[in-house]
Amino acid sequence: MRDIIYKNLDGCHSYRQIKDVVGSIELKVALTSERISSYSIPAGGGITYNYAAKLVDERIIGLLENLAIEQQLAEKYLSLADGEPVNTGENRKVLHHLMRGRIAGDVVFEGQDLWQFYKSEHERIYDFSQKVHTGQILGSTGKQFKTVIQIGIGGSDLGPRALYLALKNYARSQKNEKLVALFISNIDPDDPNDVLSAIDFETTIFILVSKSGTTQETLANFEFVKCKMMEKEIPGLSPKQHFVVVTSKTSPLSKTDRTFNSFYIDDFIGGRYSSTSAVGALVLSLAFGSGYFQDLLRGAHEADKQALNTDIRKNASMMDALIGLYERNVLGMPATAVLPYSQALVRFPAHLQQLDMESNGKSVNRYGDPISYLTGPIVFGEPGTNGQHSFYQHLHQGTDIIPLQFIGFTQAQSDFDVSSDGTLSQQKLVANLAAQITAFALGKEDLNRNRHFSGDRPTSLLYSSKLTPRALGALLAHFENKVMFQGFLWNINSFDQEGVQLGKALTSQVLAGDSLNPVLSSYIKLLT
Amino acid sequence: MRDIIYKNLDGCHSYRQIKDVVGSIELKVALTSERISSYSIPAGGGITYNYAAKLVDERIIGLLENLAIEQQLAEKYLSLADGEPVNTGENRKVLHHLMRGRIAGDVVFEGQDLWQFYKSEHERIYDFSQKVHTGQILGSTGKQFKTVIQIGIGGSDLGPRALYLALKNYARSQKNEKLVALFISNIDPDDPNDVLSAIDFETTIFILVSKSGTTQETLANFEFVKCKMMEKEIPGLSPKQHFVVVTSKTSPLSKTDRTFNSFYIDDFIGGRYSSTSAVGALVLSLAFGSGYFQDLLRGAHEADKQALNTDIRKNASMMDALIGLYERNVLGMPATAVLPYSQALVRFPAHLQQLDMESNGKSVNRYGDPISYLTGPIVFGEPGTNGQHSFYQHLHQGTDIIPLQFIGFTQAQSDFDVSSDGTLSQQKLVANLAAQITAFALGKEDLNRNRHFSGDRPTSLLYSSKLTPRALGALLAHFENKVMFQGFLWNINSFDQEGVQLGKALTSQVLAGDSLNPVLSSYIKLLT
Repeated sequence: MRDIIYKNLDGCHSYRQIKDVVGSIELKVALTSERISSYSIPAGGGITYNYAAKLVDERIIGLLENLAIEQQLAEKYLSLADGEPVNTGENRKVLHHLMRGRIAGDVVFEGQDLWQFYKSEHERIYDFSQKVHTGQILGSTGKQFKTVIQIGIGGSDLGPRALYLALKNYARSQKNEKLVALFISNIDPDDPNDVLSAIDFETTIFILVSKSGTTQETLANFEFVKCKMMEKEIPGLSPKQHFVVVTSKTSPLSKTDRTFNSFYIDDFIGGRYSSTSAVGALVLSLAFGSGYFQDLLRGAHEADKQALNTDIRKNASMMDALIGLYERNVLGMPATAVLPYSQALVRFPAHLQQLDMESNGKSVNRYGDPISYLTGPIVFGEPGTNGQHSFYQHLHQGTDIIPLQFIGFTQAQSDFDVSSDGTLSQQKLVANLAAQITAFALGKEDLNRNRHFSGDRPTSLLYSSKLTPRALGALLAHFENKVMFQGFLWNINSFDQEGVQLGKALTSQVLAGDSLNPVLSSYIKLLT
Repeated sequence: MRDIIYKNLDGCHSYRQIKDVVGSIELKVALTSERISSYSIPAGGGITYNYAAKLVDERIIGLLENLAIEQQLAEKYLSLADGEPVNTGENRKVLHHLMRGRIAGDVVFEGQDLWQFYKSEHERIYDFSQKVHTGQILGSTGKQFKTVIQIGIGGSDLGPRALYLALKNYARSQKNEKLVALFISNIDPDDPNDVLSAIDFETTIFILVSKSGTTQETLANFEFVKCKMMEKEIPGLSPKQHFVVVTSKTSPLSKTDRTFNSFYIDDFIGGRYSSTSAVGALVLSLAFGSGYFQDLLRGAHEADKQALNTDIRKNASMMDALIGLYERNVLGMPATAVLPYSQALVRFPAHLQQLDMESNGKSVNRYGDPISYLTGPIVFGEPGTNGQHSFYQHLHQGTDIIPLQFIGFTQAQSDFDVSSDGTLSQQKLVANLAAQITAFALGKEDLNRNRHFSGDRPTSLLYSSKLTPRALGALLAHFENKVMFQGFLWNINSFDQEGVQLGKALTSQVLAGDSLNPVLSSYIKLLT
């Protein structure tokens, strides 16, 4: 392996070459059936990444390939997987891949093989879930658990919630629903009040999730739930028997005697990368049994292995990352919209919004030096076809060009479908998706300029036959790896989040009753 | 009144003056307690708009005021309200304000006073809802309705859904819950399958909403629901008795004998502006009784009247529009994030995303001529504090500056709150909001550049004591009016959506089995 050299994007010879390319391709000319067949890469888990409708040609791809080589993307990924502390600011390893399987050497920390550690926590969770399902573990009044409520925020909420919603219909169609999962995240008391209004505390188990064990929202909601529980005065109800915790071994929460079981993650699993750790494992295993979660890990591991490929034409997440960089830094496009044609992925864009914007919304490089090029884009999205009746007007005819990431499946998750006007709903869904990609790429000439579509608006497509747990795992890992590769390209640390600290510090001043600067004090006055 | 002249933004003398201003203000210096008190405008419904933390000073505001005068914002609004066909492409009036109350003269169309028409439809809905609540109208098997499901997409879904969720907790705390509302929108069969999995058809009433009566998704879901209903083989169950329709009098749906009642809107109410029409009235009145909806109309009407003010310092939505234009066209900021510190507003950003991006995501002016300046921004958002643990990293330290629209309330909707570490959850929520505004404005110097916050990131705040139906109505109308004023500034038609037509046309080709262009045909092959 070559020595690894971290350097800024604008220090790369190959980047300057890409910047020098004049003009861009015309999809109206370039997009052919042949190109649609060939600009296609397996992404693991049965998912395929198709980039035929992106504004790249062989020349641009060749230059992006040079950039991938110059920035040593594959080597940096391996080095990360090998346990190098690439989270530079916090001097931490980044090991979410290891939870899915080994792709590099052993990673040992303080005498412990971390692969064994992650695996053993997963197995403890599978075992625990099974005991809940079989009634070996019961609520404090002797009743079987029917509902699980995850209390967490950010990475402890968005990913697990998105994955739960993504598999809920699938589990129903397979008659594999175990517990209903709900989520409490916001410090706003209206959030827990709403979620708790319709549940039976006797049959509900709560998972308290905070890596640090100090997250304000999560601790406050822990108290909130307990108070609400006691307010009911249910004979025999003991809160402790209804709370388990997912945290790090060093956190204050791991030492509490107010919960009856604990599962562990460590500092090498960032919140937004923690869906495949205990943070996601417990709620998903309780909801669906451990089989789905294991399939999800399998799909993610397949995607992780695909991402090792040094040939960008065979590496979906690396290609996706490079094209995204080209759109952002060369073509100057400000955002990416994620558009799943699957209602099950209703909150997947919100998870990706965190994953991408929190990882790569940075203005300094990995050494803390200011950089002078753009980094992570805005990420947003809603499921299709809903979005077509909402913001697609802007995507088709707005003054910005926003690259689009479509996601689609041949089959629905549920078996029941209805024909109207001669076609099933699923056929209509797929027809809409294909029509949209075509419309964005080819546009339509019209003398009425209000009905004119310029075309050449770039899109890519991640698709598979069905949204299964395995496909979902691969999708998740695809985006994690894309974001990681983009972080390497920009030479930033994608694994810290110092930008959230200032707001926290000022909030603490207010709540501690400290004397405040006059601006903060004035806003508090407006709002109280 | 002066003659109204529609002209492009770059044809405005005052716009060129604003473009010529060099440099921008520093909030770190400018933002004082005095400014926070004075840069504040009542927005109707008890809502206040505070723009102290925007990058404007008296000179910029003066220039924006000149632009408001030159582009005749107040006159154009009055002319719209007076029934001028400002939806130029479709040659239609734009009358959503009239549903809330009269702000201009009578509007008569084909001999009918439209104010009377809208009012009478609202009254029919109030009457109908009451009959459902009192059991005078029952399901086909003689049971009282407990659930209402709205079947609609885009404007027939996002607005009503956001408003329902915004008032659900409020109604619970007031013990004013009547029916539970659910929504089906997506053509994806997983959407209706999921929603229908947990309901009792005998006690469910469905509202079919499509102005044109031809919306593919809504008609398909109508069939879907009926099939699912019949599949249950419930003795005596007759679908017709469970369906009512909201449509225009000229639509095919108004003539169907497959529903048992119809309520009407007309062509002068755009989908994304229809929340205060029958489209929102019926589902909200069924869910909460008509009182809330009438309060919501009252709040919206107050905001509509505020928006008539010709002094921009007394016109919240006009000021908001002008500052937004300054950020977009002069400062070059690509997006706006809407950040409600209220879990009840969880889907309000998705509604505003449609409202804004579908209205102003245009590249031609109202006459269909291409324009050469930027129009509507990207709009996205999630509730705080959730977003703080997600994409706020990017907002604080990303390479783009994204203007933020905060929304906050002194009190929660529900009464129950819990103290932890000496403060209530609601106090923590408010402290977080004030801290964020302060952090974005003032930043923080740090020699560690990774912990440095540049500050000067512009935000504004819409706030009130509590999110009531009246406050919600004013919030809704504030944004509608802001978008309208921006449309006037850009000289575009904010009321059509030709950008959605091409995708529809291509979808129809696929579903009709027409011969397809090779690109479309290749994508269909990938996906089937």
